[in-house]
Amino acid sequence: MATKKELLNRPIQHLDLAQHNVVPLVEAMQHMAYSARDTARAANIYDMMLRDTDCGVILCLAGSLISAGLQKLIVTLVRSNMVDAIVSTGANIVDQDFFEALSFNHYIAGDEYKYGAGDAELRELMIDRIYDTFIDEEELRICDETLHQITNSLQPRPYSSREFIREMGAWLVKNGKTPQAGSKTGGRDSIVLAAYEKNVPIFCPAFSDCSAGFGFVAHQHERQGKPMVSIDSAKDFYELTQLKLANPTTGLLMIGGGVPKNFAQDIVVAADVLGVDASMHKYAIQITVADARDGALSGSTLKEASSWGKVDLTYEQMVYSEATLALPIIAGYAYHKQSASSRKGKQWSQILDKVQETVEV
Amino acid sequence: MATKKELLNRPIQHLDLAQHNVVPLVEAMQHMAYSARDTARAANIYDMMLRDTDCGVILCLAGSLISAGLQKLIVTLVRSNMVDAIVSTGANIVDQDFFEALSFNHYIAGDEYKYGAGDAELRELMIDRIYDTFIDEEELRICDETLHQITNSLQPRPYSSREFIREMGAWLVKNGKTPQAGSKTGGRDSIVLAAYEKNVPIFCPAFSDCSAGFGFVAHQHERQGKPMVSIDSAKDFYELTQLKLANPTTGLLMIGGGVPKNFAQDIVVAADVLGVDASMHKYAIQITVADARDGALSGSTLKEASSWGKVDLTYEQMVYSEATLALPIIAGYAYHKQSASSRKGKQWSQILDKVQETVEV
Amino acid sequence: MATKKELLNRPIQHLDLAQHNVVPLVEAMQHMAYSARDTARAANIYDMMLRDTDCGVILCLAGSLISAGLQKLIVTLVRSNMVDAIVSTGANIVDQDFFEALSFNHYIAGDEYKYGAGDAELRELMIDRIYDTFIDEEELRICDETLHQITNSLQPRPYSSREFIREMGAWLVKNGKTPQAGSKTGGRDSIVLAAYEKNVPIFCPAFSDCSAGFGFVAHQHERQGKPMVSIDSAKDFYELTQLKLANPTTGLLMIGGGVPKNFAQDIVVAADVLGVDASMHKYAIQITVADARDGALSGSTLKEASSWGKVDLTYEQMVYSEATLALPIIAGYAYHKQSASSRKGKQWSQILDKVQETVEV
Amino acid sequence: MATKKELLNRPIQHLDLAQHNVVPLVEAMQHMAYSARDTARAANIYDMMLRDTDCGVILCLAGSLISAGLQKLIVTLVRSNMVDAIVSTGANIVDQDFFEALSFNHYIAGDEYKYGAGDAELRELMIDRIYDTFIDEEELRICDETLHQITNSLQPRPYSSREFIREMGAWLVKNGKTPQAGSKTGGRDSIVLAAYEKNVPIFCPAFSDCSAGFGFVAHQHERQGKPMVSIDSAKDFYELTQLKLANPTTGLLMIGGGVPKNFAQDIVVAADVLGVDASMHKYAIQITVADARDGALSGSTLKEASSWGKVDLTYEQMVYSEATLALPIIAGYAYHKQSASSRKGKQWSQILDKVQETVEV
Repeated sequence: MATKKELLNRPIQHLDLAQHNVVPLVEAMQHMAYSARDTARAANIYDMMLRDTDCGVILCLAGSLISAGLQKLIVTLVRSNMVDAIVSTGANIVDQDFFEALSFNHYIAGDEYKYGAGDAELRELMIDRIYDTFIDEEELRICDETLHQITNSLQPRPYSSREFIREMGAWLVKNGKTPQAGSKTGGRDSIVLAAYEKNVPIFCPAFSDCSAGFGFVAHQHERQGKPMVSIDSAKDFYELTQLKLANPTTGLLMIGGGVPKNFAQDIVVAADVLGVDASMHKYAIQITVADARDGALSGSTLKEASSWGKVDLTYEQMVYSEATLALPIIAGYAYHKQSASSRKGKQWSQILDKVQETVEV
Repeated sequence: MATKKELLNRPIQHLDLAQHNVVPLVEAMQHMAYSARDTARAANIYDMMLRDTDCGVILCLAGSLISAGLQKLIVTLVRSNMVDAIVSTGANIVDQDFFEALSFNHYIAGDEYKYGAGDAELRELMIDRIYDTFIDEEELRICDETLHQITNSLQPRPYSSREFIREMGAWLVKNGKTPQAGSKTGGRDSIVLAAYEKNVPIFCPAFSDCSAGFGFVAHQHERQGKPMVSIDSAKDFYELTQLKLANPTTGLLMIGGGVPKNFAQDIVVAADVLGVDASMHKYAIQITVADARDGALSGSTLKEASSWGKVDLTYEQMVYSEATLALPIIAGYAYHKQSASSRKGKQWSQILDKVQETVEV
Repeated sequence: MATKKELLNRPIQHLDLAQHNVVPLVEAMQHMAYSARDTARAANIYDMMLRDTDCGVILCLAGSLISAGLQKLIVTLVRSNMVDAIVSTGANIVDQDFFEALSFNHYIAGDEYKYGAGDAELRELMIDRIYDTFIDEEELRICDETLHQITNSLQPRPYSSREFIREMGAWLVKNGKTPQAGSKTGGRDSIVLAAYEKNVPIFCPAFSDCSAGFGFVAHQHERQGKPMVSIDSAKDFYELTQLKLANPTTGLLMIGGGVPKNFAQDIVVAADVLGVDASMHKYAIQITVADARDGALSGSTLKEASSWGKVDLTYEQMVYSEATLALPIIAGYAYHKQSASSRKGKQWSQILDKVQETVEV
Repeated sequence: MATKKELLNRPIQHLDLAQHNVVPLVEAMQHMAYSARDTARAANIYDMMLRDTDCGVILCLAGSLISAGLQKLIVTLVRSNMVDAIVSTGANIVDQDFFEALSFNHYIAGDEYKYGAGDAELRELMIDRIYDTFIDEEELRICDETLHQITNSLQPRPYSSREFIREMGAWLVKNGKTPQAGSKTGGRDSIVLAAYEKNVPIFCPAFSDCSAGFGFVAHQHERQGKPMVSIDSAKDFYELTQLKLANPTTGLLMIGGGVPKNFAQDIVVAADVLGVDASMHKYAIQITVADARDGALSGSTLKEASSWGKVDLTYEQMVYSEATLALPIIAGYAYHKQSASSRKGKQWSQILDKVQETVEV
């Protein structure tokens, strides 16, 4: 039987968008069929979205993407003004991105573990598995505990996940978990940090459903009967809707489906509820392998979303692919085409800080 | 072009578990292969889960299930003591179940609409589409507005989704939306009502991500700078964890994946964070068509969850099927075998009411 | 490590259509959504197909169906005049159906073998695995050798697979592998036998691609330079086309996709090539989980087939389900509705015997 | 309504492997997870397969690949000694590759046609659809008729598909359908031509199941009672097995599943039947989106094949992706790594010509 050290010896390494100029490949793929052509069309829509400088770009993340080697790619999108807001599952942002920001790694699992043959053994060793990837559960517990401490450090009141994640970014800066601080502190770049520095808000609409949730449970347990931090999912929705009001032209780049997809689509209706005749999302891309035929939202087509008045039909594209293959191609095309060269970054966190001030008066 | 009335003329009708004795079919399927055998094994595990009267049964709902005709089946599970808590997407509970409780219907869409050919036309008519099903968007707006009013009627403070949904149940009783009130008020049975009456708590961990969210946005917009209702997702997680502490033996019946699956699995770890050495979920069933190979949680195997210490390996079964086919067979088996005949219902809402009192001291 | 005997101790048992009256279930499912409604509609189309006594029903089989417990169901369809011709992969007919007719069984594999963890061990024991099912490779070699002997016993000339499979039926009768011969010879009913007795032709368009192929290779190796049996796939296509010419109204009940689906659809075009303006298949049902988005035929929609002029648009239904769940419901509905009560069986083998005579003049 | 000319105005263009150096991308992907890592590992196995100069490489093709823009890529593999034999569905080789060799094109279909909305209209215009691709049915009829003429020109006897396809190659040369003949004759390079010139045998084990089948039906209809061409699928299997005997080390590069996958895997067993203790396929790669959970062969894992003694466990990799995305990466890696630089091409057609001579003595 392998030791824990032996099992955790090949770290996942993150793909660097800057190293792979896929522009000619995309140009070739647009004359083909199936996923190749869909991927090329998605890349072109992302290019259009970025060249339309009025457009605010919302990146949606579902599925275990950071653990799969896509962290650096997303950091690049944030730092290159190619994304204005992120809506994500908690796992991507906390358990995976923030976790790596704490200097921990994900590890490559041998093929023999993929289908569950070694899970009892992994349990013994406190190794958690995501398909073909390993995580050291003891390190994950440190992540949980860090979130607990951040929660404890906050003034007791309801927070949107966006506000909380901003505090996580501040914590990284304060604790030297930055590339600048570098080797002394094991600091690296991360999505939470980049978004903090670039004023890109991050929303996790089901924020308790991740490592942060364990911190919240511990916090609320200790504070029973006293003022405590709470995580207001309504506030998340309110804030994201404010962005739609402030910036009517929007586009969605969605990796996977789930809550992030639904949440980001719904702000068009929410704006309407607030009495503003908001335009549908003008551009929309989704990368997924989810099937449409079970009627679940994750695989539902963007055409279906147009019947709800959420997504415009003109520039929408579903891409049927696992994300580690399609996202480097779609994002890489826009990166190497310099589609965002005229963009400055919307600094949306600043809009929301103003909303916050109003609210707190 | 069809009129709205023509398009909305064939209501979805809900399957009645009591009418279909599938016990012999399940007994035949256990000697076959593939999904038939998996379905039979899942049915047997559900039977075991119910006969193990110590076991608290948590039903997880993701995907558009109520709109698909599964409302009555789930009501039957609640009323027959076959479920002790529900963790769901907001859409199932609010946009679909509560929506039907308001006397509205979902409608059968003609096959020609399934792939999006008529979505522009549907948009014009204010008809929303879920794959092969239609919804009257004007009725949905009434549902949104009802939620807005319920929100406004509450004392301003952070609520768990569970507390809020209980208020929705109370509203149904108060407004005659019950089978007893019957024809005068258009009242029908619903999951929200049955759960209210049977003290079965319902959690929606991403509660803003549904029709209720529109009500919250309107509410918080009006209350800016004033005390307001907030939806505390941390409290959801805290409460569900309390149930695990109060009732250590648990089983999961999961339809689809997404946030509900992750959330319900995670309470084992959360209990551990609170210093209690909680046992893994002893029984676990998941019905899904999600693929395992993209590494996303929805399709991840229950074996994988065992590496995280969340699900025990002994009695777990993945069923690869769209839910409208598999759930009537699995639930119907346990119903007609009277697997729950010795169960009284855990009345878990009462445990949580006590937690609430402590908190509010 | 388990012994071979221990591993092969739970035989697959075949579902008996007659035991499960699913008519009420189908009637309930037609008012639901997704696969439930699709299954109900498919059941109704099969009912219509059978009541339209002009219609010749072609059953297409792909995937490992017989090993999964569907043998008896298909035998029932043949014996109840619910099928007039079969187009299949070789594996279903030879390696699985004929194999069981030789008194061998398929066996239930433990869940731990499903994902390949024990395949090296199985190799040692000469146990072959189909997902969750085991086969004794030594018994399969006897099946191969039986086919070799049947091949050797034939007059050397080109045979359609249909002619050859008819000889396999004759061999079963001659060797007492029938239910009548019973316990003395281990005889059981089988698709090959029932089709032989009911004059239902069976075609395997890629007939070498199965256990029979091994017999052919051995036969042709021994006969090098001498007259030998050959398997004329062109003749298969010619014969199936003759059936379309003799019986213009046709319907397809397709389980899985692959070659059988394509082959059966193509006879409309082939008839056209022979100068006959053949009508498209009037009814068509396909049960499959194959995805449409990779452009492969197996998952291609029946609408797509209509663009080729192969399948009529009016009565076609794709059912998204693994076959062990959906086929018992679809076939069971028609069986218990007695949809075929006015049918006598088309005796299509007799038409082809006449074609054969002409050819051999 | 669009005219036929308007609908058929954007030809599919084939990706040129030589233009896209994906080596750095593959090197990055091997440190990621999911399909990226699987794709990288498959690329590495293909590299190993080619550097092992003893290894005969068998390329299996299922799904509509040529129509999707992969023709030139496969031609490049053949002309660069990266493939020694091909096992394919008939559609890829005849309806698509030979069809394009006749100077016809496949065309890009607008997104609105993808799900079947325009199929009735397409039928009127004699346009056939493959998911998002159009074919001119009148041109396809010319292809059918060409095959009919080639069939008529042959000496009446049983042919393997391999022999017949070689005649198709000869026909292309004779009729100036070559790049050399060029603009005068509309000649282009094709798989059938390249394989003819490079002595790479092509097998279509279900050869009637394609455009060629229509030619065969017409031919056999005209020759009733006279000597005729027949297509001996047994001979295909015998010939492919001879290659395994002559060249014991083999590797499989499989695109899709179906008959080609099964057929190529089975030659290990067939060799055994001929009394030769053949080694399993030493290397095996399959690109597919087929699900494993329905037990069908197309999605069955290569580990499962190892239980049958067909594929060695050491160097096998399933890649979960639609082929237009994964194949350019896998094949491009080996091409740009010059993995085949020490290979000369096995000239396997010459081995089979000798087998043929023996047989015909």
